[in-house]
Formats: sequence, C-alpha cells, structure tokens
Amino acid sequence: MDGFSAPASIRSYEQVRAHTDYLARALTAEDQCIQSMADASPTKWHRAHTTWFFEQFVLVPHAPRYRVFDPGFRFLFNSYYDTVGERQPRPERGLITRPTCAQVTEYRDHVDAAMLYLIEAGAAPRDLVELGLNHEQQHQELLVTDITHAFAQDRLVPAPIPHFIRPQTTPGGGAFVEFPGGLVEIGHGGTDFHFDNETPRHRVWLEAYRIADRLVRNRDWLNFIADGAYETSTLWMSDGWAMARAGKWAAPLHWRQCDRSCTDWLEFGPEGIRPLDLDAPVAHVSWYEADAYARWAGARLPTEAEWEAASRDARLGEMTGLVWQWTASSYRPYPGFRPAAGAVGEYNGKFMINQMVLRGSSMATPDGHSRPTYRNFFHPDKRWQFTGLRLAMDC
Amino acid sequence: MDGFSAPASIRSYEQVRAHTDYLARALTAEDQCIQSMADASPTKWHRAHTTWFFEQFVLVPHAPRYRVFDPGFRFLFNSYYDTVGERQPRPERGLITRPTCAQVTEYRDHVDAAMLYLIEAGAAPRDLVELGLNHEQQHQELLVTDITHAFAQDRLVPAPIPHFIRPQTTPGGGAFVEFPGGLVEIGHGGTDFHFDNETPRHRVWLEAYRIADRLVRNRDWLNFIADGAYETSTLWMSDGWAMARAGKWAAPLHWRQCDRSCTDWLEFGPEGIRPLDLDAPVAHVSWYEADAYARWAGARLPTEAEWEAASRDARLGEMTGLVWQWTASSYRPYPGFRPAAGAVGEYNGKFMINQMVLRGSSMATPDGHSRPTYRNFFHPDKRWQFTGLRLAMDC
Amino acid sequence: MDGFSAPASIRSYEQVRAHTDYLARALTAEDQCIQSMADASPTKWHRAHTTWFFEQFVLVPHAPRYRVFDPGFRFLFNSYYDTVGERQPRPERGLITRPTCAQVTEYRDHVDAAMLYLIEAGAAPRDLVELGLNHEQQHQELLVTDITHAFAQDRLVPAPIPHFIRPQTTPGGGAFVEFPGGLVEIGHGGTDFHFDNETPRHRVWLEAYRIADRLVRNRDWLNFIADGAYETSTLWMSDGWAMARAGKWAAPLHWRQCDRSCTDWLEFGPEGIRPLDLDAPVAHVSWYEADAYARWAGARLPTEAEWEAASRDARLGEMTGLVWQWTASSYRPYPGFRPAAGAVGEYNGKFMINQMVLRGSSMATPDGHSRPTYRNFFHPDKRWQFTGLRLAMDC
Amino acid sequence: MDGFSAPASIRSYEQVRAHTDYLARALTAEDQCIQSMADASPTKWHRAHTTWFFEQFVLVPHAPRYRVFDPGFRFLFNSYYDTVGERQPRPERGLITRPTCAQVTEYRDHVDAAMLYLIEAGAAPRDLVELGLNHEQQHQELLVTDITHAFAQDRLVPAPIPHFIRPQTTPGGGAFVEFPGGLVEIGHGGTDFHFDNETPRHRVWLEAYRIADRLVRNRDWLNFIADGAYETSTLWMSDGWAMARAGKWAAPLHWRQCDRSCTDWLEFGPEGIRPLDLDAPVAHVSWYEADAYARWAGARLPTEAEWEAASRDARLGEMTGLVWQWTASSYRPYPGFRPAAGAVGEYNGKFMINQMVLRGSSMATPDGHSRPTYRNFFHPDKRWQFTGLRLAMDC
Repeated sequence: MDGFSAPASIRSYEQVRAHTDYLARALTAEDQCIQSMADASPTKWHRAHTTWFFEQFVLVPHAPRYRVFDPGFRFLFNSYYDTVGERQPRPERGLITRPTCAQVTEYRDHVDAAMLYLIEAGAAPRDLVELGLNHEQQHQELLVTDITHAFAQDRLVPAPIPHFIRPQTTPGGGAFVEFPGGLVEIGHGGTDFHFDNETPRHRVWLEAYRIADRLVRNRDWLNFIADGAYETSTLWMSDGWAMARAGKWAAPLHWRQCDRSCTDWLEFGPEGIRPLDLDAPVAHVSWYEADAYARWAGARLPTEAEWEAASRDARLGEMTGLVWQWTASSYRPYPGFRPAAGAVGEYNGKFMINQMVLRGSSMATPDGHSRPTYRNFFHPDKRWQFTGLRLAMDC
Repeated sequence: MDGFSAPASIRSYEQVRAHTDYLARALTAEDQCIQSMADASPTKWHRAHTTWFFEQFVLVPHAPRYRVFDPGFRFLFNSYYDTVGERQPRPERGLITRPTCAQVTEYRDHVDAAMLYLIEAGAAPRDLVELGLNHEQQHQELLVTDITHAFAQDRLVPAPIPHFIRPQTTPGGGAFVEFPGGLVEIGHGGTDFHFDNETPRHRVWLEAYRIADRLVRNRDWLNFIADGAYETSTLWMSDGWAMARAGKWAAPLHWRQCDRSCTDWLEFGPEGIRPLDLDAPVAHVSWYEADAYARWAGARLPTEAEWEAASRDARLGEMTGLVWQWTASSYRPYPGFRPAAGAVGEYNGKFMINQMVLRGSSMATPDGHSRPTYRNFFHPDKRWQFTGLRLAMDC
Repeated sequence: MDGFSAPASIRSYEQVRAHTDYLARALTAEDQCIQSMADASPTKWHRAHTTWFFEQFVLVPHAPRYRVFDPGFRFLFNSYYDTVGERQPRPERGLITRPTCAQVTEYRDHVDAAMLYLIEAGAAPRDLVELGLNHEQQHQELLVTDITHAFAQDRLVPAPIPHFIRPQTTPGGGAFVEFPGGLVEIGHGGTDFHFDNETPRHRVWLEAYRIADRLVRNRDWLNFIADGAYETSTLWMSDGWAMARAGKWAAPLHWRQCDRSCTDWLEFGPEGIRPLDLDAPVAHVSWYEADAYARWAGARLPTEAEWEAASRDARLGEMTGLVWQWTASSYRPYPGFRPAAGAVGEYNGKFMINQMVLRGSSMATPDGHSRPTYRNFFHPDKRWQFTGLRLAMDC
Repeated sequence: MDGFSAPASIRSYEQVRAHTDYLARALTAEDQCIQSMADASPTKWHRAHTTWFFEQFVLVPHAPRYRVFDPGFRFLFNSYYDTVGERQPRPERGLITRPTCAQVTEYRDHVDAAMLYLIEAGAAPRDLVELGLNHEQQHQELLVTDITHAFAQDRLVPAPIPHFIRPQTTPGGGAFVEFPGGLVEIGHGGTDFHFDNETPRHRVWLEAYRIADRLVRNRDWLNFIADGAYETSTLWMSDGWAMARAGKWAAPLHWRQCDRSCTDWLEFGPEGIRPLDLDAPVAHVSWYEADAYARWAGARLPTEAEWEAASRDARLGEMTGLVWQWTASSYRPYPGFRPAAGAVGEYNGKFMINQMVLRGSSMATPDGHSRPTYRNFFHPDKRWQFTGLRLAMDC
C-alpha cells in the first residue's frame, strides 16, 4: 500500500474494497451463501465480515456520529473476537441467508461512505485502516480458496471465478543455492505495515544450508506418486500417515484422474477443471505431504528463518505469487513477541500453536500483500489453500 | 383430488403445483438454498425434486418427444431411488447453488408445460400423475417444517412463511370415548388415491379401548414439565431417556422461555416467534416425549388400528389439520403388503423399520391430503414436524 | 424349573448357579475382565451382576439379618435399574479390575449361602427367586456370546468355551406348512414362570399363512451371498442397506473366508474356529440381513403371533435350541401390558422400542429356559447373538 | 547407567528389568490387563512390549541360536514399528487376555536368560542394549501414569502403586534468575547414552532471559483457579480454549474437590487419594493450561534452549525428579538431525510434529534416566503425565 496521504489512502481503500467484489462478480446470491466445510466461509460472509471489521474497529470507536448499519451484524459477522462477544458458530456460517447478498452490498456501501468520509477528514487511525485493508486482502485469498472448495463438491465442476488469472509456468531451474548461515536477523523491523506476528525483528543462528531455486512441480509430484510414496509409511510423520490413510489421500487435493493413464490428470481450480500443467508448482498439498515429499527427495523443508534470510537473493526464483511454501517451522511467537493491544490483539497471537508457517505468497494473494517477513500459517493437515513447497538441505 | 377427467386433472395439477410456489413466495434465493440438518432439505430442492418426480416417472417413460430439461438433475434431484441411480448425498443438498432458484422456476415451467400437454392429450397415466401430486403435497409439508427449522437457527427468528395460516384453537373437551373393539377392518380398500403402505385392507382384533376426544394441549404439557417429567427416568423408554439427556431436552422443539416466569413461553413457527398458545395442541414433540407424557398421565398412546377404527366417530374432535398424532404402532407392512412395481416401489416399503406411525394430519398438511387410512411415519426421536398426541386407555 | 418345594427350589438354585461358573471354567482372570464392545459385558461382570440381583432384590428386602457383601457393588453391578441408583457406565464395565475374579467367586459363595438358608427357611419369595434364576440363565447366554465376541477380536482365535456343545445338524426339510389363521390367542396365561413381557395372553387375528418347517441354513446363505445380495440395494430396508455399507457386511458375523474359494468358509464360535457346517442353521445375522434374505427368497419373516400360533405343530422342526429366530414383529407391549411393580418393572418394559422380537431359543440358551411364549429382542443391526431365521409366506 | 563392562552391564540390565516388575507388584492379573484410554497401555502390555524390544532388536538379529518365545508376540507387542509389520491396534491393547500375566512373566524370564547370556558372552551390541534399557525406563514411567489413569476411573480410587515414593516438598524460592543469552550450544554431544532426538549438538542464539528458580506450585494454581482463569478466554490459545470448554476443565487432572470449600482439594495418584499438598509442584496440567497460567502470571514458558542453557546453574532448583516442565518449544528435529538407521529410526523421528517439548524429569522417572539434554514430548492437550511448569520472562 501507498503512504497515508488522504488521496493515496482513499485510492488504496477503494482499490482493495473493489477487488473483493470483483472476485465475486460471477457468483450468484446462492453461490455466495454456501459453506462446504467448517474451515471455509461463504463468499457473502467474507464480504460482510471484512466490512464489519472496519465498522467495529474503526468507525464505532473513531467516528462519533456513525450509525451502525445493523446491530445484529456484530453477532453474525464477528469471526473469532472473544473480546467483542458472542458470535455465529463457525460451522453455521452457511445458514446466514439474511442479510441477503444484495443487503450485504448495501452494507458495504454504507460502511465505505463513512470510511471515506473519515479518511478524507483525516480522522481515521492509519494503523487500523491499514490493518483493515490487509485483513480484507487476506479474506480475498480465502474467498478464492473457499469458493473453489465449495464448487469442487459439485459434480459439474462449474468455474467460480472464471476471470481468475493463473501465472504462467516456466520450466527449468532445479539447482540448490548455498547460504553460509551464521547470525542472521529476521522479522519485521520497520514502520511500514506488517502484522504483529512478524515482530520483533530478532537474531537467529543458522548453520550453512542450501535451498532450491524453484518450487516442486506437478511433474515432480507425479514421480512421488508413481514411486508409491502415498503407500510408504516410512516417508511420513506418524500423524501424517494416519491422516493420509483416514482421508484416503493419493494425490493433492483437487486432482482428478482420467480413466486412461496416470499422466492424464486434471486439476480443479477457480477457473474450473483443466488439464494438469506439469510445469506448474504443485499446489493443494498438506504439510504432511510436503514433509513426506522432502524426505522422499532426500531433502527437507527450509525453516522460516532460512527462507527469510535467503529470500532477497536473486538466484532464487518463484518466491512469491505462485504457491505458499510450507516450512519446517512451527508457528510460535518470536522472542519478545507482544500481541497488539485491544481486541485486535486476538488477530494472530492466539493461533500460535498446532500450526506450521508458510512463506512467500500464492497466485490467490492480492498484489501488494506480500513481504519477505510475512508469516502465513495453517494446520499441517490442511490442503485447500494454494500450498506447495521448496526443498532445502544441510551443507 | 377430483376425478380424472382432463379438465379436473388439469385443475388439480395446476392447483397443487401453484401451492408449492405460493408457500415459498416470501423466501429469497438464499433462503431457498440452505439446509439446516441432514433430515431437512432446501426449499429449492423440494421445488426441483417434486418436478423431477414428474419428469422421471411420467414424462420420460410416457411422453416420447419430451426433452429432458437438464440431464444433471437426475443426479441432483433424485431423493432415494436406488433403482434410478446415484445421487447428491442427502447431507449435501444445501451445497446445490446451481441451478439457481430462478432456473428451478424455469424447470418447473418446462415440466408443467409438458405435463399439461400430456394430460390434455389423455396420455398421462392417471396413477402416476396422482402419485406425483400427492408426493408434491407431502413435500409441501416438509417445505414448511424444513424452512421453519432452518430459520429457527437464526437468532433474529425471521418468519419464513408469514402468510402461514394457523388454525384457531378451542378450549374444552377432554373426555375419553369408549369403543368396543372386536374384529375391525383397517387399511385402504377402495380405488381412489392412496399410498401403497395403506394396503391391503385387512382385519385386526382389538380389545375394548377408550380414546380421548381431543389432543394434548400446551397447557397440559406445561404441567408435565412442571412435574419434573423431563428429569424422571422412570417415565421414559430407555432409548428415549438417553436421547433426552444427550439432547438436553426440557421442552418441545421450538419452545423458547422468557426470563421472567415459566408461564411465559414463546414458540417459533412458520410465521415467526409468538407467545405460546396454551389452548393449542402441543406440537414438535418426539415419540419418546409423547410416550413419556402418556405414561405420566396414566394413559397410553392409541395403536394405529384403534385410531383408525375410531376415526369416523363424531364424538372425537381434532382428528386432522392440527398436529400429526403419534401412535403406539411401529411402522411395519400390513399383512399381505406388496410394494408398487418399479422404482416407485421404493416410495414407502423400504422405510418400514425403526419408525413409528403417526395418524391424522397437521396444520401444514395441504387441503385434501388426508385420509383416515393415511400412515405417516418418523423415527421416534424426530421433533421438527408438527407432531403431537392424543391419549388412549384400556377399558 | 421345577415347582417350589424347598428341595426342588434348592436343586434349581444350585443347578443354575453352578452352570454359570461351569461356562466360565476355561477362562482366566484376565479373560473374565475384558469387554470388547459397549453391547457386551465381561464374564466377571455377568457372574457378579447375577449375584447382585439376588442380593438386591431378594436378600436385602427379605433377609433381615443379611450382611451386604460390599456396598460398592450396588454401583458396580447394577445393570440399568434407575430406581436403584447410579451405576458404572456400561461401556466401562471392562475397567472393573476390583473385585478380582476370585473375589467375585467369594461374593457368589456369600450370596449363595444366604439364599439357600432363606429358601430352606421358606422365607424366600418364590417369584423373585424364579425371576433371579431366569435372569441368570439369560446372562448365561450373554456370557457365551459376549466372550465369543471378545475372543473373536483375537488374531489367534482361542476357544473361550472349549466344552461348548453344538447341536448336531440335520439335512432335509424345507417344506412350508400351512396354517389357517383366524382369531388366535398368544401370550402367557398360566401361573408358571414367565417374564412380564409375555403377558397378558390376548387375541390376535391372523390371515392364513405358511411357515417353513426348518431354519435357513448356511448352505442357503451361501447362495444368497453368491447371488450378490450384499451388493443389491433393492433387497434391503433403507436403514439396513446403510448399515451394511457402513459395516462392510459381506457375510454373517464370525464368518471368515479362506483364500482359496468361496465354499471354504470358517466360522468362529465358543469352541474356536471351525469349518463352516453347511447343514447348520445360519447364525449371527442381523434382522436387516434376515429380512433381506427373506425378500430375496420370495418370502418374508413370520410375525411373532404366527410363530407362536404355529409353534406347537409337530410338522415344524428346529423351533428351539439352535438359533433365535428373527420375526417381522417390533418389540412392543402386548395389549393391556403392565410392567411388574417396583424396580424389577424396569426389567423389560423400558426396552419396548426400536427392537425386533426373536422367538425360539438358541444353542446357547440354557436347558429349561425356553417357552413358546418367550419374547427375546434385539436391535435390528445386532449380530453377536446366535440369531437366524425361518421363512414364512402369505397363502 | 554404568559403563559397559560385562559385570556393570549385567547389573544395569538386571536392575532395570527388576524395577519394572517391582512397580507392578501390587497389581493383580486383572489390573495389569486393562486400558482406560487409547493413549494408555495395560501394565501387562508394558511388561511384554519392553521384553519384545530386546527380543526383536537384540536377540533375533544378534543371537543366532535364540528361539523366539512366541511368534504371535511380534503382532501383539509391537508398538508402532511399521518396519516390523502389522500390530494389535493401539486402542485394543486392553483386549489382550492371552498371554496371561503369568505367561508374560515367563516371557520376561525367557528373554532375560538369553540377554544375560549374550551380554556375558560379549556378543550384545552395546548401543541396542542401552537403548532397550532406556526404552524400558520410559515405559516404567508410562506404567505408573497409565495405571494411575485407569484406577482414577474407579469410584473407590484404590492405590495402584502403594509403595510409590513421592518426593518431599519444600516451600520457598520464587525468584527469577537472569541469563545473558547469546550464542549457546544445546543438544547432546558426547558418546554416552542419549536418544537420537537430542542430537546433533548445535548452536542457538538466545536473547537475555530470566527463568524462575522453582516450579509453579499447587498453591499458585489455586490462585489461578480462584481468579477465574478457566473461564477467561483471553488467557488461552484458541485451540486450548476450545479444548478446555469441550473437556469441561476446571482444575488439573486427578484433582477432586471436597464439598466444603475451595481449599480442600484432594489429588489422586499412584498411592491413592490424598489431600492436595499446597507446596508440591502442580502436576497433570496440559500445555494449554501451562501456557494460560504463564500468560496470567505475566510471564511465559521458557524455550527448550533457554531451559537447557540454564539447567546447570546452581541457582535453579527443582529441575528434575518432580514434574516434567512444559516448554514454549514445538517438538521438531534439531538442525542436522538424522534418525537412527533401521527400525529403531522410528523411535523418535516420526513423532516430531504436533507435540510440545518437556524438559527435566518427574517423580515417576526412574533414577538415572534424566539428562539436561533430554527431550520429552506430548501433545499440548495431554494431562495424564506428571506435567507441570516453570515460568520465564524476557529481560
């Protein structure tokens, strides 16, 4: 995002807000209403919740004459802020038929008008506005992956986002780049926007390591499958093996096999069903699968510190914009971490257990929403995000 | 329904079909899409499935030039006909966003045009058309109870069917009417429309019995609650007690208590939230609760044969149009029962286990869809229908 | 059982009590402790619970100077008597290590001494003593089937009751015997011992029917399997089909297939693993399977009234002592049924829902514990008892 | 353990093996058979599995003339070695009645004789024997906590290990000791016995930190409870809060409250039920509770590197022998970690996900089985071990 002059802020605000609705433009009112699993949320809910975030955390405390659009939304569109109060149970977000899709559009307009007025008046707290916009960008990515998951349940596999742009794939690469390690600094140290979980900037000791100059690709993954890796327990973490058995995993999520032969795979995505692109980075694998793949390949996943320390080296390609990259690092607070004050302190801190860190960004991440210090995180069994991997090795 | 002259048939067809859409008229596209539990179906699904029934069982076999509206609907809108083939899993009916609500309306129009043409041409098989219309009437009742259940999950308790007409309640009554029993005949013996589960007409031996001249009322049920019946195991069947504990049952479904006192209960229904009418028959109780109530009252539920043998006696009131009445009878085939031939043989027969028979009809049952021989059935733990009870006793 | 002169009573008491321990004689202390599923109980628990029944219902109320063996047993060995109080949760009976097996033997001796003294003194209430002995005989059968189920989980399939005597099988038979029906009387009308659920004797109207002169045999069942019946949905009740899919049923419980060919089946039983006897009646099938078999065979199950009305006809063979016979009848109270007074009123009445009646008796039923009016009952999905079937047809 | 001269080895072997049976000496055959949850194993199983470990990994490959005691034990007593083959499902270990307890004693004698012969002959591979003995010591601790959990299910709370020795508690302490941090080395670097997960020794950068000189005590925990911490969501990780709600946690596991007042708590342990010792370190808390406590106290848990770097400082007390201490560190491989070759490579490595590291040792840890580099690990919701905590803070 740009700086925080009013015109620049207004431009940022309008661009981010418009992009959410742009993503949803091919979705009917019914499409926007459904929830295909507890992890996912309806499109309408994303559109309303991101709006509620501005209303609850910016307008209500900072715009004295602001009129709340509908008091019931505090219940319906609160995601997980215990400090704010009770809320719609997460697995029941798909039961919210009212407000309708059209009323949510009205809600967005109502809040946008108040927000723009506040920004123009110079009365909007910069940090919360920026947090709200970055929050909305995170939900833009979830909107894409959630509706893709929902449509994947449909036998007819319609395209939820036919205008989704998938990055071009490039063959080549595959070397390991060596880094000396030593005492490095990671984490965000500046004053530009960042989430609290990226701080504080701190020192980490690394041994020398090597890291791949590209992502693991679908072509590589086919070899992993062909080698029987999904049936070889010794490649897997114990919990991963149990999960793979229980879920009958035999390929990444959203892969579908033709009848004829193993090379003819299809992949479902926001733009519908397509032949699998062998040169594209593998996506929709869990941490368990990524970890097993690395072991199978005689390598390992990089730690998040290794990834970040190497991230600005020009020899490494495919660092952002393709798939999130699972790391070897558990999602835990950095030394000296303090959550933000107030309700937004629940934003990140309370999730710092049982999840693994992903670095980079994906093809579903909005432009500008990526940093070398960015810490994304999911439980190790989750597969519905654009999640892949890059290999690393000791020296 | 009237006889089967073409004009009368057309009138019946048009009336029944129109009533379905009339019931849904206050529901948005999103309202029509959701499913609040596996037992319930979305409004849109009811509207499409009843249409598919005519397409699949009348038009496809009997209208040679009929063009199927969409071949995918055979999968989406088949309810449980194994003979017809695979289908959308029942708990995932709420994920069907496409066809949209508007497209389902088109589907209804398409099938209606073909049906009316076929009836007018005298080429429609009478029995299947009548079955289709009675089938649609059953779904009209489910449409009401399913959307009421869905909206009951909503904190704001909006009214799904604000134009729902609730019958007037009448105080009074409460006597037991005596019947001599003996060898009686029950079951449907005529040629007018009936479901296969009502046949064959057959003899049953009954001992003399007494049966109440009215239904158990909300006022009565409050006494049952006040007496601690929901906490008294000896009043309950063992399975019912376990269910009541697990489900934390303390009142009928859809009852909500005010803060102030026990007499100020509210009840949620198709027309929204209303004060509990003490003179109305109790509704939304499971068989387990009905059975426990009868035991508490020193009485028992009537068997379905007792109910039917008594049903035409003018001394008995409130036999139809208020709530379905749980009986003491398990839903099993009558002696000599044969399911209908073909796929429609799956209509009733395969459900004749683990369910209990209900007699009469409810305020959600369409006009004309009621017979003294009618056998409704639900599992003994189900509560979301308009289900109540009438007491009986031995002499 | 014999009459109730003191010597005869003492002989009955001693015989029944001794038989329980005779059944368990090959079981180690550990064998007697385990519980392989919530439906089953440990051998030690059966031995203690049957003893507690005499202590709780005979000695405590009727033997003024009786000293309770251990007050904690009221909690541990109460099966389901809410009137008596709290109890060990059923699925946790396998956690009762103390009292030990040896202490349970002491408990049995302690209660036996007091009981024999009471009987000899003529102070024992005959009905409760008889109830207690019949209760113990029921647990003798459960002891056999429960420990057989537990040992069936063991890869090495040891024999829990190597001295179990399996009745000889006889080829032949297979005709249907016709009965005129009409107004028949069923139920127990005399004063000799019977359970409350067999009463009152009452009239039932039956249409003419035919009933097979023998049980369905393993040889028949192989044809059912070979014909693909376990994969043919139209043969099954809807709930049964769902259960068969979920449980991956492909043969009766305890059947195990050799590698070589379909005819080489083994069957596990109290005496260990044995080749399947093709002339033996099929056992360990659920009601769902029995019902599907009957449909496949173009027949049906008899109702319990049909079974009982025909039961004394000499043309029918294999009525008792082989396998319990599933009927078409739901387990519901007879017209005019009243449970016994007091805690023993919980014996039968509260289970009269969701279960199906079985008639006859099995090879695990103790001698003398069988009557034409006897009503056994299990849920339709249960398979671990010696349960089979006999076919019937309309005329 | 001592060095590996034959006499010293024999002494070690005999001592460790004898201690297992010493722990079980008050347990009957039935006590040794039961399993109260999937996480726990029967005492008999521990006794047999530790024996099988020597048989499978030492005798079979290294003692050419060794006769396997019973080939079926490879199935029954394999814990989780996929490389070795199929095994008894973990939740069904409580169904193993055969071999009996006495036969397991014979098995232990059989293997001991062969092992002692092999050690005496100098033919036993030192590393595997030491691994086997340390493995058995780990199971000694599990034997204590597993049987304590099982007996805790018993209303009469008998003492499974009445001869259990509980360390004396000491009031006092409570200061925070400061450490400078910097580049420290952690992990095991020597050649004496250690598990593979303690290696390699490696450098870690630490910021300056403070760590408490004693453990959190029961007296402290009562303040945490009294302050409503179990009802205050903001103190908890999101997953922990959900777990605490679902499990209705209101105090550490095995605490039981008297009726009278909050200070009169009892605690169940190996020696039975006792008044809660307020000066004893809190035990049986999950990581979620430990983490919430630290937040409530304005502190945090130490990382495992902080703990280890501080562990030899004389100012810190209560480092071992009381309760395992939850750390802030996820259980992940050290940089450069390589699992051991062969089946024993499954010992630790495949569990390095979803668990948290504990340091120190507990009152149930056998003497000599403790090292500053020792890494114990459990899932963050587990409570049945002797698990407590020590606070830390940033400087």
